[in-house]
Amino acid sequence: MTDAPQASPSPAPRPAGAVPDDFHVFDTTLRDGAQREGINLTVADKLTIARHLDEYGVGFIEGGWPGANPRDTEFFQRAREEIDFRHAQLVAFGATRKAGVRVEDDAQVAALLASGAPIITLVAKSHVGHVELALRTTPEENLAMVRDTVAYLRSQGRRVFLDCEHFFDGYALDPVYAKQVVRTAGEAGADVVVLCDTNGGMLPAQVTAVVRTVLADTGVRLGIHAQDDTGCAVANTLAAVDAGATHVQCTANGYGERVGNSNLFPVVAALQLKYGRQVLPEGKLAETTRISHAIAEVVNLTPSTHQPYVGVSAFAHKAGLHASAIKVDPDLYQHIDPALVGNTMRMLVSDMAGRASIELKGKELGIDLGGDRALVGRVVERVKERELAGYTYEAADASFELLLREEVRGKSLRYFTVESWRAIVEDRPDGTHANEATVKLWAKGERIVATAEGNGPVNALDRALRVGLERIYPQLAHMELVDYKVRILEGALGTGSITRVLVSTSDGRGEWSTVGVAENVIAASWQALDDAYAYGLLRAGVEPQE
Amino acid sequence: MTDAPQASPSPAPRPAGAVPDDFHVFDTTLRDGAQREGINLTVADKLTIARHLDEYGVGFIEGGWPGANPRDTEFFQRAREEIDFRHAQLVAFGATRKAGVRVEDDAQVAALLASGAPIITLVAKSHVGHVELALRTTPEENLAMVRDTVAYLRSQGRRVFLDCEHFFDGYALDPVYAKQVVRTAGEAGADVVVLCDTNGGMLPAQVTAVVRTVLADTGVRLGIHAQDDTGCAVANTLAAVDAGATHVQCTANGYGERVGNSNLFPVVAALQLKYGRQVLPEGKLAETTRISHAIAEVVNLTPSTHQPYVGVSAFAHKAGLHASAIKVDPDLYQHIDPALVGNTMRMLVSDMAGRASIELKGKELGIDLGGDRALVGRVVERVKERELAGYTYEAADASFELLLREEVRGKSLRYFTVESWRAIVEDRPDGTHANEATVKLWAKGERIVATAEGNGPVNALDRALRVGLERIYPQLAHMELVDYKVRILEGALGTGSITRVLVSTSDGRGEWSTVGVAENVIAASWQALDDAYAYGLLRAGVEPQE
Repeated sequence: MTDAPQASPSPAPRPAGAVPDDFHVFDTTLRDGAQREGINLTVADKLTIARHLDEYGVGFIEGGWPGANPRDTEFFQRAREEIDFRHAQLVAFGATRKAGVRVEDDAQVAALLASGAPIITLVAKSHVGHVELALRTTPEENLAMVRDTVAYLRSQGRRVFLDCEHFFDGYALDPVYAKQVVRTAGEAGADVVVLCDTNGGMLPAQVTAVVRTVLADTGVRLGIHAQDDTGCAVANTLAAVDAGATHVQCTANGYGERVGNSNLFPVVAALQLKYGRQVLPEGKLAETTRISHAIAEVVNLTPSTHQPYVGVSAFAHKAGLHASAIKVDPDLYQHIDPALVGNTMRMLVSDMAGRASIELKGKELGIDLGGDRALVGRVVERVKERELAGYTYEAADASFELLLREEVRGKSLRYFTVESWRAIVEDRPDGTHANEATVKLWAKGERIVATAEGNGPVNALDRALRVGLERIYPQLAHMELVDYKVRILEGALGTGSITRVLVSTSDGRGEWSTVGVAENVIAASWQALDDAYAYGLLRAGVEPQE
Repeated sequence: MTDAPQASPSPAPRPAGAVPDDFHVFDTTLRDGAQREGINLTVADKLTIARHLDEYGVGFIEGGWPGANPRDTEFFQRAREEIDFRHAQLVAFGATRKAGVRVEDDAQVAALLASGAPIITLVAKSHVGHVELALRTTPEENLAMVRDTVAYLRSQGRRVFLDCEHFFDGYALDPVYAKQVVRTAGEAGADVVVLCDTNGGMLPAQVTAVVRTVLADTGVRLGIHAQDDTGCAVANTLAAVDAGATHVQCTANGYGERVGNSNLFPVVAALQLKYGRQVLPEGKLAETTRISHAIAEVVNLTPSTHQPYVGVSAFAHKAGLHASAIKVDPDLYQHIDPALVGNTMRMLVSDMAGRASIELKGKELGIDLGGDRALVGRVVERVKERELAGYTYEAADASFELLLREEVRGKSLRYFTVESWRAIVEDRPDGTHANEATVKLWAKGERIVATAEGNGPVNALDRALRVGLERIYPQLAHMELVDYKVRILEGALGTGSITRVLVSTSDGRGEWSTVGVAENVIAASWQALDDAYAYGLLRAGVEPQE
C-alpha cells in the first residue's frame, strides 16, 4: 500500500460558489448522521443527499469513511464522477495512523488519500483515559499519531481538520493533555481542531467556558461537534460560536446516533437570523424547509412535524386566544417570518380553535365566511363531531375544504355515489398473493361495475375506481397517489383499533391531502380515496353531481 | 358574580410529599402542552395525566383555564374530588382583570377562585406594544390590572404566580416598563414572576443576561417559561436557572404549540444529574422513562424514539466501531447510566453493526455465540439481506430472536405450516362492512380450515388463526395483540408501496414485537402475526414441530 499516495487522484479545487472560508458550515449527515437508528443509506441515497446539501450551500460535506466499508469507498468515487459541486467540498473521514505503524504504511490512511477528497477529517483521542483503554497505547504515542498523520496528509496536498473525540470529558479529566492534542494538531498543520462532545452530555454554559479557555490557551482555530443527549446540541453549538468557534459540525434534521447530532437547520437559521452572520450563499436560507423535507424523504423518515423552523407545525396556530391575536398582528406569536426559512404560517382547524380560526382558514382558502355566523357555527360543530370520531383536519386540508364548501353550498359536493365495494386478498399455496377489488358506483346517472387487481387491496380498489370512472371523468388520468399513511388510533387495542388513513394526491401541478377513518384500514383508505378524487375533480373545475 | 369568592371552596393544603419550596418544578402539560397540534384531551385524559405527574413528583400541575372552557372547569372539580395528590399542587391559569373593570366584578377572576385551586397563575402583558395593540389599554392601567388582581387573589388566600407574556421581546423594546411589571407583581404579593419567551425566539446567552439583570434590579423571585422555536427551550430553561431563576415551567415530552415547550424530562434530568440539585422526591428520577411513555399514550402520540434520556434510541448503539468500544467499557458512549432515568442500553442489529453487535445482542438474549464465527457470519448475512428487503429488527426483537434461534438450531422454529389464507372486506349498500377471513393450516400432522369475522381484515385473520389453532395450542388463549403499527416504505409511490407492519403481543407477563414486510398490508400483517404466535409459543415452552 505504500505507493497508494502516488496513485491517488489529485484533490478537487474549491468550488466557485463557496462562501468565504472564515466560517465553516460542515455537514456530517452522510457519516455521523447515518448512524441513526432506522437509517440505512445506499450509495444512490448518499449521492442524492450530497446534491441537496450542495444546493443548500453548506461549505463541507463529510461523505463517509473510505476504506472502512465498500459503500463509502464507492460513494467518493461516484461523487467525484457524477456531481458537479457548486458550493460544497467533499470531506473524507478517517482515523490517525495506528500505534506503532509508520504513517506511510498505514492502509487506512492510504485509503483516505485514494478517495480523492480535498479535505480529510481525522478523528483522534484527546481523553487520556481513552488513549489507554481503547487505543492501548501511551499518551505520547497518541500525540505522535496526530502529528505524523496530519503532517503527512498536508504533505500530500490535503487540508486537514482534526476531530477530538470525547474532548470535553477528556478536558475535565486532564486539561493539560487535552490542550496538548489541540496544539499538536495545529502545529502539524491542521486548519481546524474540532472539539467533540461525543457522549452528548454537555450543557451550553460549560461549552462556552471550555471553548473560550482552549482558544485562548492554544490559539488554534476551533470547531464544535455536539450530540443531543441532553437536548442541548443546537444550543451547545451556538455556545461554542459565542466563545469563538468558527466551524460547526451538524447533520440534516439532527440525524445521528442515540438522540442525534446538532441539527443543521436551526443552527444555520440562528446564525443568519439571530447572529446576523451570513453562513450560506445569498438566498439559500429560504430553501431550508424544502431541503429538510427532501432529505427526510431520501432517508425514508417522516419529517418531524415539530422541528424548529421547518416542521409543518413550526408556525401553526391552534389556540382560539392566539388566533384572535393573530388576526390583529401575525408577528405576535412568531419569532421570525416563516418565509425566511421557506415555511408558512398555518391556522389549524381543531376543536380548541373556535370561530376565529375557522374564519381565518376560510380566508386562506379564499372563502369569505365573515358575514355568516350561523354557517361558521355549523362548520365548528361538524369539525368537533368528526374530530371526536378520530378525523384530523390539521393534516387533511382537502378534506376540510370539501367539508367547508359543502356547508357553504348547502349540499354534497360529490361526483359519484357508491353502491358497494369489495376487496379480496388471497395468499396462494405458492406464496404469491392475489389482490382483487370490485366497485359498484353511480355517476352521471349511469351504474358502473368495475373490477381490478393491484399489488395490495387498496391499490386494487384505487385501480377499480379509476377503471370505472375514467371514461366519465378523464381528468382522473392525471391524478396519482403520492403518499399514503396509516395511523392506528388507540393503539392499545391491537388489530381491533380505529384506523386513520391520510392520502396525498398529486395532479402534477399541486398536492392535496385527505383523511379517512374507519374500524378497518381498507374502509378508511376508501374514504380517503373518495375525498381525494372528489377534491381533485373540484380542483380541475368539474361540475359536481346534483 | 360578585358573591363568587364567598362561595368558592377553600384551597387544598400543601401535600405531605411535596419537595421543598425553594425550587419549583412547574408542569403545564394540561394547559400549554394541550395546544400542540394533534393533541385533544378529554377530562378523563387530563385526570390520568395529572395522576402521572403527581406520581412523578412535580411540585405544580397547571390544569387549565377554569371558566374559559367547560372542560377545564370540570377538570378542576373532578381533580379535587377524585385525586389524592401526594406531591403536586393544582394550579389554575387565568388572566388579570379586564381593563376598566373592578377586580371583584370580573367573572373570569371569580371563576379562578371558584376552581378551588390553591395557586393561580395569572398571565399579564409586559410588552408595552402588546398592551396597546392587543389589550387596547394604557401601560398604567395594565400595571393596575396586575396590582389589583394579584392583591385580590392573595386576599382570598391564594398563592399567585405571574406569567409575563412576551417578556423578552418586551424587555428588548422597553426594559424599564418590563421590569416595572415584575416589580408591581412582586409588591402586590406574587410569589414568583415568570419570564415567558412566548414566541420562542431566544437563545441561552441572551436569556442568562436578561434574567440576571432583572433579578438584580427587582429582587423578585423569577421563573422561566421557554418555547422551543429555536430548538433551545431546554437550554434556555437551564440558562435562566444559571442566572438565578428558581421556578421552571415545562411540559411532558415538550408538548406545546408550534414547535413545543421546554421539555420537563431533560430539564429535570439535567438539574438532578448535571447540577446535582434534587428537584424531584427521592427515587422518582428513575421513573422518567415510564412516565414519559405513559403520558404519550394518554395523549395518543407515539413516544419520540429520539427524545433525550427517555427515547428508546437514547442509549441505543449501532455503529460497529462503537459496539467494539462498548464491549470494553459501556460508559465510553453514554453520558449517564441509563438506569438513572429508567432507560436501558440497547445494541441495535443493523447492517452497519457487524459481528460485535450480533454477539452482544446474543448475550443480551442469553445465547452464547462467542465461539462460532461461521454462525455469527450467517446471522449477519441474513440480517443484511432481510433489512435490504425492508425488514427492521431494531424494533422487532422477537423476530430477530426467532431468526437467531433458527440459525443456532439449524432448522425452522415453527408450530404450524400455512397452506393458504384469504381475507375479504365488503362494503355493503347500507354502509356497514363485512370482514371475513379463512385460513388453511397444518399443525401436528392435522389439516385445519378455519373461518372468522372481525372488525377489519387483519382482525379477522387473527381470529381465524386462533379459532384454528387454539385446540392444538391452548397457550394461544393467553396471548393478545396490544399494538399494531403500519409503515409504508417508499411513501412516494402511493398505494403501490412496500408495507411494513410491527405487531406487539402480550401474554400478560411480558410483551414482544414482531415484523412483517410485504407489498400489501394484509400480507405483511400476516407475517408479523405468524412470528408473534411462534415466539409466544416458544416463550411458553412449547416444543416446535419437527
